[in-house]
Amino acid sequence: MSPTLHDIRAAAERIRPYAHRTPVLTNQSLNHQVGAQVFLKCENLQKVGAFKFRGACNAVFSLSDQEAAQGVCTHSSGNHAAALALAAKMRGVPAYIVMPDNAPDVKKAAVAGYGGVITFCEPTLAARESTLARVQQETGATVVHPYNDERVITGQGTAALELLEDHPDLDVILAPVGGGGLLSGTAIAATELKKGTRVIAGEPEMADDAFRSLKAGRIIPSENPKTIADGLLTSLGTLTFPIIQQRVEQIVTVSEEAIIESMKFVWERAKIIIEPSSAVAIGVLWEKKIDLSGLKIGVILSGGNVDLARLPWQTK
Amino acid sequence: MSPTLHDIRAAAERIRPYAHRTPVLTNQSLNHQVGAQVFLKCENLQKVGAFKFRGACNAVFSLSDQEAAQGVCTHSSGNHAAALALAAKMRGVPAYIVMPDNAPDVKKAAVAGYGGVITFCEPTLAARESTLARVQQETGATVVHPYNDERVITGQGTAALELLEDHPDLDVILAPVGGGGLLSGTAIAATELKKGTRVIAGEPEMADDAFRSLKAGRIIPSENPKTIADGLLTSLGTLTFPIIQQRVEQIVTVSEEAIIESMKFVWERAKIIIEPSSAVAIGVLWEKKIDLSGLKIGVILSGGNVDLARLPWQTK
Repeated sequence: MSPTLHDIRAAAERIRPYAHRTPVLTNQSLNHQVGAQVFLKCENLQKVGAFKFRGACNAVFSLSDQEAAQGVCTHSSGNHAAALALAAKMRGVPAYIVMPDNAPDVKKAAVAGYGGVITFCEPTLAARESTLARVQQETGATVVHPYNDERVITGQGTAALELLEDHPDLDVILAPVGGGGLLSGTAIAATELKKGTRVIAGEPEMADDAFRSLKAGRIIPSENPKTIADGLLTSLGTLTFPIIQQRVEQIVTVSEEAIIESMKFVWERAKIIIEPSSAVAIGVLWEKKIDLSGLKIGVILSGGNVDLARLPWQTK
Repeated sequence: MSPTLHDIRAAAERIRPYAHRTPVLTNQSLNHQVGAQVFLKCENLQKVGAFKFRGACNAVFSLSDQEAAQGVCTHSSGNHAAALALAAKMRGVPAYIVMPDNAPDVKKAAVAGYGGVITFCEPTLAARESTLARVQQETGATVVHPYNDERVITGQGTAALELLEDHPDLDVILAPVGGGGLLSGTAIAATELKKGTRVIAGEPEMADDAFRSLKAGRIIPSENPKTIADGLLTSLGTLTFPIIQQRVEQIVTVSEEAIIESMKFVWERAKIIIEPSSAVAIGVLWEKKIDLSGLKIGVILSGGNVDLARLPWQTK
């Protein structure tokens, strides 16, 4: 049985001492630009700069003391790795992170900075999985998947729970979709808190596997995605897909131009740093492929991890 | 008689329907870096991206209907101009803004975007003042000085009032100083709310007129300041200086390097966009010229208006 609002409330209690309750910002210029009332749930201001901390933290603090003592492990080149390392550090247990050896130095440094024990491998999915299996066998650590894990899904759902606690009258919740952890948790929280709340996802046109999966009624893997939204390259999981099928109204694809334009607009007007994956959700409003005019719309800004030396409006 | 906490509370009531109650953020990386517990009062997330909206809004809504109908006017190259234009727009009255013709494009666009009527002039104080006098005479508008005005000072003080309402146990409040509107309002709020609260200002080494004024016991005008912190180029005013003398513990000068480094650190770690003037307050902690280690420190982040195409760590 898939997780419920009850599980998300339990996750919220569990992570409360460790995670930020992030602010919800409003911005008149943005409202004017998109023709709706937008409420930005700022997970870019979450620990490690991304919503990923919620799910990782919930997973780590869900373990029994005996399990936790063995540590946790995952393979990831991104925010989930840093999030899991920090959550493990907070519980005082080891985090074993398998990373491809071509991962950017800044991400290696982030994981190491939080005390994660890194094992490098070849940059292929096969190598990542076999290396993780070996690490898991050697250490007895618990594997925490970036999104296909109920503890992670319910942890991610706590962002929407907080947003709807602060603003119960939202008509629509918008979130980006990659592997679907954030989207499925968000959808459970929103649709169970208030029947009729519409949950809509944004996905890059250049990585539209979730959009196609929902049309096809089966998981279509992501193949060779080429988008600036580097947090949304993964395919849906066996746990996240059915939740999305059941609870998400639709997935809207967003052009690379709209991602970059709306990202820059939010930096300039709202004065917060969002990463391209966050801008995908804004991009749904920006392009107006679907009519959401005049509605009250909560947007989950997924993260703010950006290389400040390589901004998209400067390398163009 | 100089304004009191009572006046700041009245200002807070007056601007409440119009201004954001900005969030206070904390960041473990920053705390670790500077060795203190830092509470960031995010006036960069205020309307028009700066604390200046508070003072301008308080001034505009303090006017009688008859006064207001004639409009308001000021000379400003920066955030005060945008703030006054927006506040006037909210009251439905005109704002006449005198700007030096070399003001940043982003600031000109902001003022025009809020419906301000701009008159350009030469970038000298003499030209600004004579042009403003002419505009004032032609329109009958009320002059709202960027800082040497009690309505503005008490408006700016509402940021510290909110910060101390949220975190009553702060030991120190840090703010940048330019003309002293923010600093004097902050100092009134902080010292009257809790006796013994230390108020300390940061000022660029390259524009250290307030530092020298406090030492000399008289206002020393700012001469040829050359700092990246373009919000802090002005001299203290006759109203702000005595308040600062009486209530501010000290002014600490900050190098250009520390301004840029701490600005970049806040962007990278706290995921918020702050302008160099805001980073001057962080810079006090960054350089550690004075020992504030282990203390609870509220920092007023003054604003977030930055030209994203010209970032200091890229033009170097």
